[in-house]
Amino acid sequence: MAKILLGPQTLIYPLPALLIGANIDDKPNFMAVAWSGIVNSEPPMISVAIRHNRHTASGIKQNMVFSVNVPSTDLVKETDYCGTVSGSEANKVEVCQFKVFYGKLKNAPLIEQCPVNLECKVMHTLDLGSHSLFVGSIEETHVSENCLTDGNPDVNKIKPLIYCITSPVRRYYAFGEVIGETRSISQELRSRK
Amino acid sequence: MAKILLGPQTLIYPLPALLIGANIDDKPNFMAVAWSGIVNSEPPMISVAIRHNRHTASGIKQNMVFSVNVPSTDLVKETDYCGTVSGSEANKVEVCQFKVFYGKLKNAPLIEQCPVNLECKVMHTLDLGSHSLFVGSIEETHVSENCLTDGNPDVNKIKPLIYCITSPVRRYYAFGEVIGETRSISQELRSRK
Repeated sequence: MAKILLGPQTLIYPLPALLIGANIDDKPNFMAVAWSGIVNSEPPMISVAIRHNRHTASGIKQNMVFSVNVPSTDLVKETDYCGTVSGSEANKVEVCQFKVFYGKLKNAPLIEQCPVNLECKVMHTLDLGSHSLFVGSIEETHVSENCLTDGNPDVNKIKPLIYCITSPVRRYYAFGEVIGETRSISQELRSRK
Repeated sequence: MAKILLGPQTLIYPLPALLIGANIDDKPNFMAVAWSGIVNSEPPMISVAIRHNRHTASGIKQNMVFSVNVPSTDLVKETDYCGTVSGSEANKVEVCQFKVFYGKLKNAPLIEQCPVNLECKVMHTLDLGSHSLFVGSIEETHVSENCLTDGNPDVNKIKPLIYCITSPVRRYYAFGEVIGETRSISQELRSRK
């Protein structure tokens, strides 16, 4: 199978489409990010990379806390809007009609309409070039009651968005079919050992 | 909408299912990770979090390079196998029948069967608790020729896997339907500003 070289590219699949919240001068603001991922299990931590000059980066530096809100496919318009407009130019909470609430950290704004919300405290900040990488400890997790099944978060009710930068267009996708369950899907290979 | 508190949880959607490659004592090995994400645009960088005692962590520290291989849904068994068996106990390359090749960095092993391969050089290492976070600059990107359309990576040909930790089971999903294109999907909200 021939391979084509594309040079250095940020090319992984899937990417998330998350709404990062921060208060800026005591007002809640949200931006969409795809540059995010889990970075530690014990204690639970997540990283979020944001361009230095973004409004949200200022808010995180002001309070050293942020939120991660997982939008559902129903919120695709609002999510995309929060990724294409700056909080310095518009009141995104008002335009998107987000119901904002606060939890344990008191100053990390959370979106009620998003099925999953994480409250995070900044533990490390790395300047990597174009972006600041904020590594946050996850202090609390909120899940909408109607997205739980037997007390557990249910992906079929959460209906998360996937961000996909396949050129030349960038698209949002939904989750598709189940391909397999962990461990049972590789049982046969493990027995070959 | 009522919210239920679940305590600190690594709960975001989607998570990737990536195969991280490293040479250990000059032998190629691969492990599956979900704790990974893009962390910078210019220059392109990616982070990968690995438990300190994992075989792959030793290999990355030996050579200060690693690879990120994006498996397709066809490779779900091999991907799961590489996430459930240690390279200290089995020759995973042999069991999975991976065709290994090397690129620009010479010692970051790449899997030919994976449609996308990134070669990465470690720029930062952070000890976050249970995991080491390796931040790597992406030095080269390889894409299988049959996964390109008009020279661009095509997600419909790549067919990436999604990892999903919805309790109590953990599953792999495929990409589903297109929910919208960036910018055009939020045009109406932007005009409301």
